[in-house]
Amino acid sequence: MSNVRIPSYDWQETAAHLEEMRQRIDAELDRRTNFPEGCPSRLREAIRYSLLAPGKRFRPLLVLLSTEACGKEWDRALPAACAVEMIHAYSLIHDDLPAMDNDDLRRGQPTCHRKFDEATAILAGDALLTLAFETLAKDIHPPRLAAECCRLLAEAAGPCQLVGGQADDIQAATAEGSLELLESIHRRKTGALIEASLMLGGTLAEATEEVLRGLREYGRALGLAFQITDDLLDLEGDEKLVGKRLKKDDAQKKLTFPRFLGVEKSREMVGQLVSQAAEALAELPIDGRHLVALAFFVGTRKH
Amino acid sequence: MSNVRIPSYDWQETAAHLEEMRQRIDAELDRRTNFPEGCPSRLREAIRYSLLAPGKRFRPLLVLLSTEACGKEWDRALPAACAVEMIHAYSLIHDDLPAMDNDDLRRGQPTCHRKFDEATAILAGDALLTLAFETLAKDIHPPRLAAECCRLLAEAAGPCQLVGGQADDIQAATAEGSLELLESIHRRKTGALIEASLMLGGTLAEATEEVLRGLREYGRALGLAFQITDDLLDLEGDEKLVGKRLKKDDAQKKLTFPRFLGVEKSREMVGQLVSQAAEALAELPIDGRHLVALAFFVGTRKH
Repeated sequence: MSNVRIPSYDWQETAAHLEEMRQRIDAELDRRTNFPEGCPSRLREAIRYSLLAPGKRFRPLLVLLSTEACGKEWDRALPAACAVEMIHAYSLIHDDLPAMDNDDLRRGQPTCHRKFDEATAILAGDALLTLAFETLAKDIHPPRLAAECCRLLAEAAGPCQLVGGQADDIQAATAEGSLELLESIHRRKTGALIEASLMLGGTLAEATEEVLRGLREYGRALGLAFQITDDLLDLEGDEKLVGKRLKKDDAQKKLTFPRFLGVEKSREMVGQLVSQAAEALAELPIDGRHLVALAFFVGTRKH
Repeated sequence: MSNVRIPSYDWQETAAHLEEMRQRIDAELDRRTNFPEGCPSRLREAIRYSLLAPGKRFRPLLVLLSTEACGKEWDRALPAACAVEMIHAYSLIHDDLPAMDNDDLRRGQPTCHRKFDEATAILAGDALLTLAFETLAKDIHPPRLAAECCRLLAEAAGPCQLVGGQADDIQAATAEGSLELLESIHRRKTGALIEASLMLGGTLAEATEEVLRGLREYGRALGLAFQITDDLLDLEGDEKLVGKRLKKDDAQKKLTFPRFLGVEKSREMVGQLVSQAAEALAELPIDGRHLVALAFFVGTRKH
């Protein structure tokens, strides 16, 4: 990471700022899942169990930080931040199902279908996916921006992106793969929602096309870096910190970056991507310092 | 049904009109699932297999008919009609899963997880649910109406309505129930999406509050009538016509209307609800004749 000039950051200031945002996100997610009449209590419990489980809130933070970087108050982006986390939580619940990745540990606790049952887990995922769009459509103003946010999120979560990436990921676990396929899977399965988080934040700040392009580039590099560190954590991480069963990729012969590139080269690639992310913001007329700091956090994350 | 005055309908005209609309709906659904790059072929196939299977297209017809009844061209409502059918198709795919109702026949062909596999079926449902909102957000203009349609559809498909109704339905199959619970389940599981179809059509025609209220009332009565005829068909229908395994409700001790009311009383209730639906439109300043005819078709349906 020596090829990028880092201004003298106050890392602690960023960390404190992220923590403040995280608390607001959690409070909002809580408030938005106190359903009125009509939602059965077991379903409600399952939704809240998965959505409110301790998490990094990485994607919603990206939404808030990008709105803020563009000079607008970040709390206007809270509904979009919540919607992105709902999509993320739904995709984890469904990915963990026995018919999919068959995982029994997530965010340090039993997966949704383990804690409840398969039917409830499927429905909790469906409910969160739907609630994401209700949140955008209802609480983003003006409606022009609400519609644009629905479009951005639906594209990123749809059959050509998130769902398509997951479908290919399952298939790839039993097939021969290439580094190209692996990249394509992760750009869709993980990258698209991360990119969308940035675009949502920028859109809500009514950023220019140039700024949106820069945010997208940042998100694209960051998303891939995030996934490679995920692969590395699966190999070398601490199960207690990561909160899910590790060393599974290897056992399942999953396509991973360390498998193709080795651990050292994978680490190098993370460094390059983090620099790329930072550079994508460098020339923009925005205050991207927290976003840059977050990218460096991703490069060194332990969970 | 003697207590409602029916003008001399040209039933054949309505039938021909519905057929014309049905063909446009099918062509649109086909066009909208020719995905660009990024959607794996097996997923694409599963989505199209379930969505394009021969169906009555009851809900999308309600969208188009209500826009038309309010004096606007019905083709402006095609994106909303498609979105509603996507939600319906997704809910069938997920409801049929082994962890849910465990059905192997739907619309006269093997259910999605039978034809493909469970993981693909779960993902195809997720994709259709997401695509519904993409369709609304992208193709309804102006954006103000797109946002309103997203809100209407998300509420109807969410944890307090469609998903909540399905969750209670699964629970109720193993519990004691009441007629009240049964009605509440069906208002959410089936009724909400039918009501939303009417509201979407009316909203796209920019109907007045009074008209929207009338359409909702029509939808509420029709939705319940539709569900009771569903229960009756499960008991007495022809499996080849209905296209799904019948006489399952009884075997699974499901809550049904005939179980509480008996067959005769259930049939009477259908008649009353169809009349109620027609009456809800009678005094409105709209041309509801096709909607009224459709309600009578529901009252006598064989599939």
